Amino acid sequence: MHLTLEDIMARPAAYRRDLLNTLPGPRGVHLIGTKGYRGTENLAVFSSVVHVGASPPLLGFIMRPLTVPRHTYHHILANEWFTLNTLHPDFLEAGHQTSANYAIGTSEFGATGLTPLYSEACTAPYVQESPVRIGLTLEEEHAIAANGTIFLVGRVREIFVPDDCVADSGHVDHLRLDTLTCAGLDTYYPVGKPTQLGYARPNTQNP
Amino acid sequence: MHLTLEDIMARPAAYRRDLLNTLPGPRGVHLIGTKGYRGTENLAVFSSVVHVGASPPLLGFIMRPLTVPRHTYHHILANEWFTLNTLHPDFLEAGHQTSANYAIGTSEFGATGLTPLYSEACTAPYVQESPVRIGLTLEEEHAIAANGTIFLVGRVREIFVPDDCVADSGHVDHLRLDTLTCAGLDTYYPVGKPTQLGYARPNTQNP
Repeated sequence: MHLTLEDIMARPAAYRRDLLNTLPGPRGVHLIGTKGYRGTENLAVFSSVVHVGASPPLLGFIMRPLTVPRHTYHHILANEWFTLNTLHPDFLEAGHQTSANYAIGTSEFGATGLTPLYSEACTAPYVQESPVRIGLTLEEEHAIAANGTIFLVGRVREIFVPDDCVADSGHVDHLRLDTLTCAGLDTYYPVGKPTQLGYARPNTQNP
Repeated sequence: MHLTLEDIMARPAAYRRDLLNTLPGPRGVHLIGTKGYRGTENLAVFSSVVHVGASPPLLGFIMRPLTVPRHTYHHILANEWFTLNTLHPDFLEAGHQTSANYAIGTSEFGATGLTPLYSEACTAPYVQESPVRIGLTLEEEHAIAANGTIFLVGRVREIFVPDDCVADSGHVDHLRLDTLTCAGLDTYYPVGKPTQLGYARPNTQNP
């Protein structure tokens, strides 16, 4: 199948959304936990988290346009802190359910049965059920002119990960953690046994 | 394991890099094909591609700081077009090998045995071996102040995907495509049988 931009734009919106969202392949998926200035907790599923750097540790993600209230966005601006929590098969349905359009006064924790968990430092709620939890503060935001989305960058302030899932090298074992990935808005893929390759050098070549 | 930002920064650089790169979980991985103003083809592996929007179709990725020449970056600025090509187990080693530090005059195609492929429209090379190929033009770039990386946004101009891997709904089947994901710089995870969940609504709740 070969589609040009014109072909893509001529398709129904739902087809275009599902095609474009799934085409690049499965990607990381996280529950983002926030707390608003009135104390309301929010939890929402995002599949756009990206590694920005390790020194200092930075992660970024895409926020949809502010054409409607985006609770996650408003809460991060109000409270600075937010949390990333990896998705696990044991609570996939509850995690996915956080994508429903709840009223701003409704906590997705209460609505989905997931458990808020606070650390000493972080003023946003973690998801107790998530094996990997990352606490961040807002570092910067970039408005994407082409479609009104926003690229938010956060600085990692603390992390929680099970000891037995971190190798001496620092590599985290996502097969053992059963970490899910996601393509599009609704299709969650488990991962299988990984292949770890060595650092590539120009002279070790032509396979 | 609980590490604060101070704990993380106190670790050796290699440990910090591998921990932070792998912690958020497996993500999409692509070969980015470009061509410089002198006609040199370049191919490099990236694991930071993110969906920015479907209308118009936009994808973004993180470019490392320009403290050294970044062939992919210079070529995109010179030529506007670039390609994203998904990674498949049949050519994983060759794809990973593109991350080696070749001289700017060396094509990673020649060095790794992958095959450049051109469409009528796209002036950057695709990877013939990749089942999913996306041609884009540079839309905008955002300098990340916190660490000197750059968030590049491209507009999708054309796509190639096998017919039998696209559902009537538009969903692309990455189990059938054998699309790989990647955590960190070196650990490639295959995906397993996916779970597809329905559109979440506030009233279908409390599992």
